[in-house]
Amino acid sequence: MMEGSEPVGEAQTAGLVLIGNELLSGKIRDANGPHLVAGLRRHGIDLLEMHVVADNVDAIAEAVNLVRLRRDHCFTSGGIGPTHDDVTMEGVAAAFGVPLEERPDLVEIVSAVFGEGESGQAWRKMAVVPSGTRLEFVRGNWPIYVVENVYVLPGIPEIFRRHFDYLVTTIEAIPIESNVAYMKIGEGELTRPLTELAEAYAGRVDVGSYPVLGHPDYTVKVTLDSRDPQALSEATTRLVGAFPPEVLFELAERVEAGEA
Amino acid sequence: MMEGSEPVGEAQTAGLVLIGNELLSGKIRDANGPHLVAGLRRHGIDLLEMHVVADNVDAIAEAVNLVRLRRDHCFTSGGIGPTHDDVTMEGVAAAFGVPLEERPDLVEIVSAVFGEGESGQAWRKMAVVPSGTRLEFVRGNWPIYVVENVYVLPGIPEIFRRHFDYLVTTIEAIPIESNVAYMKIGEGELTRPLTELAEAYAGRVDVGSYPVLGHPDYTVKVTLDSRDPQALSEATTRLVGAFPPEVLFELAERVEAGEA
Repeated sequence: MMEGSEPVGEAQTAGLVLIGNELLSGKIRDANGPHLVAGLRRHGIDLLEMHVVADNVDAIAEAVNLVRLRRDHCFTSGGIGPTHDDVTMEGVAAAFGVPLEERPDLVEIVSAVFGEGESGQAWRKMAVVPSGTRLEFVRGNWPIYVVENVYVLPGIPEIFRRHFDYLVTTIEAIPIESNVAYMKIGEGELTRPLTELAEAYAGRVDVGSYPVLGHPDYTVKVTLDSRDPQALSEATTRLVGAFPPEVLFELAERVEAGEA
Repeated sequence: MMEGSEPVGEAQTAGLVLIGNELLSGKIRDANGPHLVAGLRRHGIDLLEMHVVADNVDAIAEAVNLVRLRRDHCFTSGGIGPTHDDVTMEGVAAAFGVPLEERPDLVEIVSAVFGEGESGQAWRKMAVVPSGTRLEFVRGNWPIYVVENVYVLPGIPEIFRRHFDYLVTTIEAIPIESNVAYMKIGEGELTRPLTELAEAYAGRVDVGSYPVLGHPDYTVKVTLDSRDPQALSEATTRLVGAFPPEVLFELAERVEAGEA
């Protein structure tokens, strides 16, 4: 994206905060980030930042504040279980400057699911949430915790996906369309035409170029993204016209999110 | 990690800034983060944060400053090619508040590799770096750009790996040892013993617990990490002793980085 350019239309923006020492030490390879990236893209929501932080209240609060104050939606993943290293609720409360409180409606759910024994007592931690938390009830035992524009999701991939897939459908956004040109040319020779194209369509079409090593048929993938089909079509024609025909290996139009 | 706990010994700390719209839109799935996570872990360097940001000067500068000012080492990945969306050098210069300058020694390398034609002119952008940049010459055509404690690496995985694998060997650190207990028990029943263990060994052993869904033999993976072999051994004995023997499915000692 050209610096300073903005997507067309009333673009919805989002950021993600992934929480857990295990992601930074490599004990667990995150699967939630890629799922969210693809899902937001498919729905036309612009993901503008991701932060991976440790199980540390200050680090969580800092990242949540970075995202929630300047994006429409902030998703968090992880750190809401019953064990000592689960401190996301404290981090989110600190970000908002509100106290934690034990919610009777959540205590009831914990008792119903985990009983009143030692295990139930430990899980009661999950009834303690930032003051002002809204609960969204979806399929499954557990509600989604929402604090203003912050969605506090569990790290367990199966539950993260179920909750995220529901939430993303509640956000109205204008989908992005993408055309991709696979070209056999050095990135150096591409630079001037692409810069001109990006400047001519600044704010209407995002132009990206990605070198591809080791492919027999092409060396660079050029992507054009837009919420304006007319501008996308024009920019694509102009891109193709800027090079000799033998440079273009393939033009893929209206490609699916995740393939562009 | 317990909030406020610190690793044993003279731990070296690091953070990573991944740069590129393509990572946020899902066009490219990052491979450099996982490589760095595993490599730092293997060498005993504590990775404490990762940020994924767009091709935007302010966003890059913000993330670089978050990391470089509070960690020993800041690695960046991506955004240093010749095209319009490659703005990492500007972002790093902005982070340090220094100007960009064209370096004669780099101009010479660009000319030698890409010639003096249009392509060479475009690649001359790679000779423009933040004032004060140090060049590390390793195998391959291109040197590594270093600005104080910031290593500015390319996003292309093959080159990122080569440069990172060299750099990580130049940092002296004390390796971490890990023991892992695979247990068949609810996370709720684990909570109290684990909290006690984490508190007893705060600052010496990091205790993590991770629920595992759908495995026939165990339900939780408990990890103990330490730079102090004696403390690790004691904490492991205490962990195993805190539960009935049938709860422990397997104890893996001194596991490799990436498997813990």
